[in-house]
Amino acid sequence: MSTVQNASNTTAPTQFVETSNETYAYRRFGSGTEHPLVCLQHFTGTLDNWDPAVTDALALGREVILFESAGLGRSTGKVPDTIAGMAKHAFAFLDGLGVASCDVLGFSLGGMIAQQMAQDRPSIFRRMILVGTAPRGGEDIMHLDKPSLAKYLGDPKLQGYAVLQKIFFAPTESSQKAGAAFIKRLSQRVEDREPISGSAVAQAQLAAFRDWEKFTGERFADLKDILHPTLVLNGIYDEMIPVQNSYWLSANLPNAVLLTYPDSGHGSLFQFHESFARQAAAFLAADSEAAPY
Amino acid sequence: MSTVQNASNTTAPTQFVETSNETYAYRRFGSGTEHPLVCLQHFTGTLDNWDPAVTDALALGREVILFESAGLGRSTGKVPDTIAGMAKHAFAFLDGLGVASCDVLGFSLGGMIAQQMAQDRPSIFRRMILVGTAPRGGEDIMHLDKPSLAKYLGDPKLQGYAVLQKIFFAPTESSQKAGAAFIKRLSQRVEDREPISGSAVAQAQLAAFRDWEKFTGERFADLKDILHPTLVLNGIYDEMIPVQNSYWLSANLPNAVLLTYPDSGHGSLFQFHESFARQAAAFLAADSEAAPY
Repeated sequence: MSTVQNASNTTAPTQFVETSNETYAYRRFGSGTEHPLVCLQHFTGTLDNWDPAVTDALALGREVILFESAGLGRSTGKVPDTIAGMAKHAFAFLDGLGVASCDVLGFSLGGMIAQQMAQDRPSIFRRMILVGTAPRGGEDIMHLDKPSLAKYLGDPKLQGYAVLQKIFFAPTESSQKAGAAFIKRLSQRVEDREPISGSAVAQAQLAAFRDWEKFTGERFADLKDILHPTLVLNGIYDEMIPVQNSYWLSANLPNAVLLTYPDSGHGSLFQFHESFARQAAAFLAADSEAAPY
Repeated sequence: MSTVQNASNTTAPTQFVETSNETYAYRRFGSGTEHPLVCLQHFTGTLDNWDPAVTDALALGREVILFESAGLGRSTGKVPDTIAGMAKHAFAFLDGLGVASCDVLGFSLGGMIAQQMAQDRPSIFRRMILVGTAPRGGEDIMHLDKPSLAKYLGDPKLQGYAVLQKIFFAPTESSQKAGAAFIKRLSQRVEDREPISGSAVAQAQLAAFRDWEKFTGERFADLKDILHPTLVLNGIYDEMIPVQNSYWLSANLPNAVLLTYPDSGHGSLFQFHESFARQAAAFLAADSEAAPY
């Protein structure tokens, strides 16, 4: 199947790859001679939760591969309750596709999986983009019961994407307006959509977050082994995974550039999608051993 | 005088502008239709301390104006012992040149002066770049007596630029190598150099740092009024003005993007001069009301 045709997450068909354990759903579009960019998704998100404004812009210069891990959408299997377990599925998927080395965009939960993969098999990634995520041993990772999130998650007047708009964007007029535009973009795909995640997905992934907050030995010492050029991005008003976690990531990863955006929350990459796509493309186009681009 | 000719800080002649109070030394080079970029210098630095790798790259797309404040180099007058006093000299200089609105690159001490100017006369700046600096009420600003700095500043074997290499760059092989290259670039200018600053300059500027650490009322509340699109940059291992100050700046300025560089100290913009010039040029070329670029 041509990857240039339907080079948009609004229209790209969902594909499937069978491995020895599971069958994984994915979408693959765009073209380029560079490494493909594998995108690892956030809490309960499916392939349909990738903003086409981001994925399509990135697909102009490279192949973009959106991955649906086990137990999500139409992928078979069970959602693991550890990041390490999720990393194994991502490896099985990439091995199944025959991708030996790629770039990665890990958003939120996906950024944790990317860190785990970089430690388990460094050769899998050339360059890493970690957005709205946290190192092992980070703090305040996806505590949905805290007041600033619970007031939206427990509001019966908010349903579906309306909740996402509230919790992914800052409570300013400008950020909420960007959130509404984001929701509209997600809604453009009308056919071949993925099933929405249920509570079993959420429970397993939340268990993985609780485990990821624990650490043994020297805090953040494990990051010293991740030598990949890395771009870390966070919105300054992120209530789901606060920006402090990105400060720790960029201060302890030996080769990371940090970028923060104002007036934005967890979905900063979607709010400032033009800037993010430009920065990410420039970062991925660089071939230096050092992260600054 | 043509500003295209000698469009380099290695060769641009030092010029002088007489105002009602003082005569200020400056250099002006480059060309472009955009706003000129005024550069405000670090502790004890003269016009000769601007890295041509940074200034010349930026001058490819715009006019660059390097300003020497009162009591520095060949500028007349006395160094003020407050940031507010230094801001007054910068206004007098720009008024003297007839520059009603410009972009600004404020490095270290210069970044504090830029913040003060943005508050005192918002129309003076279109976009701001603040590197290795701190908000009023910041912490650990230029404490030269702390062990990590004193060991170099008090080392009789280190003289002149050799000290600068140690304290502006991280104690890694790669950062020190970049520091040596920086020193070499500064040394390329052989004629028409400025007198080196003496202890009277240092004492007055250190007094200004001590005053800048003090605050009254709500900490960082004064930053809420600076609405200019701002790019904040810091090296992750900055011992002179630690990165925490840039976290505070970007978290409290309402319209700021933060960029941090790995493996670098106070002179991060000089260490990664190609990346910095590219990022700064992209930021300055943007015309959005929002900082992300």
